[in-house]
Amino acid sequence: MQAHALSKVAPDRVAAAFAELKALLGPRATTAQAVRDHHAKDESWHVPVAPDAVVFPHSTEEVAEVVRICARHEVPMVPFGTGTSLEGHVIPVRGGVTIDMTQMNQVVRVSAEDLDVTVQPGVTRKQLNEHLRATGLFFPIDPGADASIGGMTATRASGTNAVRYGTMRENVLALTAVMPDGRVIRTARRARKSAAGYDLTRLLVGSEGTLGVITEITLRLYGIPEAISSAVCSFETIAGAVDTVIATIQSGIPVARIELLDDRQMEAINKYSGFDYPVRSTLFLEFHGTPASVREQAEQVQAISAENGGGGFSWTTKPEERTRLWQARHDAAYAAKAMRPGKSLWATDVCVPISRLAECITETKRDLDESQLYSAIVGHVGDGNFHIAFVLDRDDPAEMAEAERLNERLVMRALAMEGTCTGEHGVGLGKMNFLLAEHGEAIAVMRQIKQAIDPLDLMNPGKIFSL
Amino acid sequence: MQAHALSKVAPDRVAAAFAELKALLGPRATTAQAVRDHHAKDESWHVPVAPDAVVFPHSTEEVAEVVRICARHEVPMVPFGTGTSLEGHVIPVRGGVTIDMTQMNQVVRVSAEDLDVTVQPGVTRKQLNEHLRATGLFFPIDPGADASIGGMTATRASGTNAVRYGTMRENVLALTAVMPDGRVIRTARRARKSAAGYDLTRLLVGSEGTLGVITEITLRLYGIPEAISSAVCSFETIAGAVDTVIATIQSGIPVARIELLDDRQMEAINKYSGFDYPVRSTLFLEFHGTPASVREQAEQVQAISAENGGGGFSWTTKPEERTRLWQARHDAAYAAKAMRPGKSLWATDVCVPISRLAECITETKRDLDESQLYSAIVGHVGDGNFHIAFVLDRDDPAEMAEAERLNERLVMRALAMEGTCTGEHGVGLGKMNFLLAEHGEAIAVMRQIKQAIDPLDLMNPGKIFSL
Repeated sequence: MQAHALSKVAPDRVAAAFAELKALLGPRATTAQAVRDHHAKDESWHVPVAPDAVVFPHSTEEVAEVVRICARHEVPMVPFGTGTSLEGHVIPVRGGVTIDMTQMNQVVRVSAEDLDVTVQPGVTRKQLNEHLRATGLFFPIDPGADASIGGMTATRASGTNAVRYGTMRENVLALTAVMPDGRVIRTARRARKSAAGYDLTRLLVGSEGTLGVITEITLRLYGIPEAISSAVCSFETIAGAVDTVIATIQSGIPVARIELLDDRQMEAINKYSGFDYPVRSTLFLEFHGTPASVREQAEQVQAISAENGGGGFSWTTKPEERTRLWQARHDAAYAAKAMRPGKSLWATDVCVPISRLAECITETKRDLDESQLYSAIVGHVGDGNFHIAFVLDRDDPAEMAEAERLNERLVMRALAMEGTCTGEHGVGLGKMNFLLAEHGEAIAVMRQIKQAIDPLDLMNPGKIFSL
Repeated sequence: MQAHALSKVAPDRVAAAFAELKALLGPRATTAQAVRDHHAKDESWHVPVAPDAVVFPHSTEEVAEVVRICARHEVPMVPFGTGTSLEGHVIPVRGGVTIDMTQMNQVVRVSAEDLDVTVQPGVTRKQLNEHLRATGLFFPIDPGADASIGGMTATRASGTNAVRYGTMRENVLALTAVMPDGRVIRTARRARKSAAGYDLTRLLVGSEGTLGVITEITLRLYGIPEAISSAVCSFETIAGAVDTVIATIQSGIPVARIELLDDRQMEAINKYSGFDYPVRSTLFLEFHGTPASVREQAEQVQAISAENGGGGFSWTTKPEERTRLWQARHDAAYAAKAMRPGKSLWATDVCVPISRLAECITETKRDLDESQLYSAIVGHVGDGNFHIAFVLDRDDPAEMAEAERLNERLVMRALAMEGTCTGEHGVGLGKMNFLLAEHGEAIAVMRQIKQAIDPLDLMNPGKIFSL
């Protein structure tokens, strides 16, 4: 187990900053142990570290003032949303102040005409779609958890719809952010495209809180499709399922969702969500469009899956059945975790070019079958992205070492296939060791940017890379 | 007329650098006047300035060596593609060495399975699509000129297909670049998505040569649609045409192209390309999909246009007719220019949220109708982006002042509508004055990045912003 809590900030600096934060925010600045403990961890296997204090700002101006106070006293800051990170992003490994954004949870404006919306960072993805319901629009990015839009932006999240609608990278139009010097910037206006200067929007998307605090996000929206149908299809072999995905993508069929779950994941989901699907490699699919185009897409994919050993589609066209199906898919990690109550989740996250996906998954599955560690595979395979959920005892060095060994083999396999160590979870603490292998010299350029924007290394220090 | 050629580099530094460049590249390093003059200008109204020398590298390694030599002697460098910029990007206003990338024009690899391709920066968009013809794939981004992929990447270009396929921002997967210190980086691997660190790909897309020299580009490709149909539709009023666009976009119809041309632009195109369309506000449209979905989309748009005073569609389904139609559209700026032979082009480039498009175009058209200056409107209106082509005498101060006045009114109108001063042409020299109005404090962050990566201000200095 790694100990990240090195070189924590000096207590006198924290005390001086906290006095000013208290004066600014009153009861919304706290050092209460229970609150600090709540902000010490995420949903991963990473070792908790409590912040020295937690603040709950209500506005961009308050965040700017918090940042100025912390900067003046050289106290580290960590933005915090729903705490559903899988890579330790929100763990304040150097101590300091956690800036909890959950009370900034207002939808600022919706423009149905422009298909966009501006939200505060504490709005969650479900809250946003609930808010949009009457407009006929929706926001498609959907990580497993009901994450905050701020956290999703900071980690460049995606989810099951990314194969059709893109990730946060493609769907954030503009950001308001407080930079480490307390300066408030807006990265872009509301035009759909712009060639006006450096793309600060995309620089902050995925920056994991290391370059500033995101306080407002303008997102693209989409019309709820006229017709939606979902399907479940099980396969004799995992290779057959993956080959179906590859052929579907290569045919250019605009499938909205195409998700792989292996036999162990299906067993877990059946148990957790009360289904009785065959315990075999399975695809969950969804089609969006006009009634005619949805039918056409579904027929095309059904034909492809039949060629690859896929057992007849079971359709779920009723909204409530679809919702139940996709909630089960979103709960996949929790379902796996429930197979070993009380244990921790370690989710891997590689993404490879689709031409290498069958090879990557087959070799990985062989590794897992040879291991004693509990694991299940689930993935956004239309993008070439899949996860292993290890469920393990964080206090058992043998289990931790085995997960580390399997994860390292997986990442190195993905990198050798021109893939990435993280498709959507981000680097946080968990992928720092792989960043040099993936990016080489480019890391030096990332460091130049970090040092220029945050010379005192106060914004979520110790994440992505160490300075 | 602005004089940009301030503070040029000292002759002895150029001479010392050139001696080393000559030793490296032999005849591919030159100070010949004709070559320098060819690299002094683009297709815009901006005043030409010749570089001190021009080099023609053949590989990333040669570019890296060129950059190291120039950096050592503190000589500015300007990357150059086809010279079709409309904002003076390639004009070496501080002198120095122009790095002409046109001899790096190889398609490095195509992966039909992964729908991606890697090219050298000198490959042009037409060359790429010619190369891809046998694969059934195409690359959709299409600025008016047959621009180089390197230049299109550096300026975050888009074109007529962006409403469906996105811009260079969405379609560059990874870049190889030589940074100002001669370091060679690769910004990403070939996975469709990644959350591994800062998005250096998007930082370099649109950086206009100010952060480094792009030497290889990996692009997304798309399957050539099973069915394609194009249509031309003229309208009683420009407002009717724009309202048709807005309703089409708001309905979520996945139109591939929806382009507006005003009466003057239609007159110019008829003359230049040998058509006899009505001289009225006109939409050029294209639909991509299966035969059924193309028919469905076209019927929907036809119904919308009929409600807005659109005269019956004229269809062009034959490939050669479609090619002729879209070539005419791509030649729109040249057609406008041909209306006043020997004069210069000044193309404006605002982009606004679609809800403000009718208002923005109507007010702009009123300005133009009241002016004596020759102008035509053309635009990628599905994105909210449109251009005025002024054709003017660069040596007539009154005409230049009038273009400046009209452009400033247009940009300020677009900014007031939450739009941008440049949808796709980039900042270059022409939009520098508007960047502060558009971005405010965010400019300071862009400067921090520029100073960190290029502390000596040698990469295309004097573009986007002055340091």
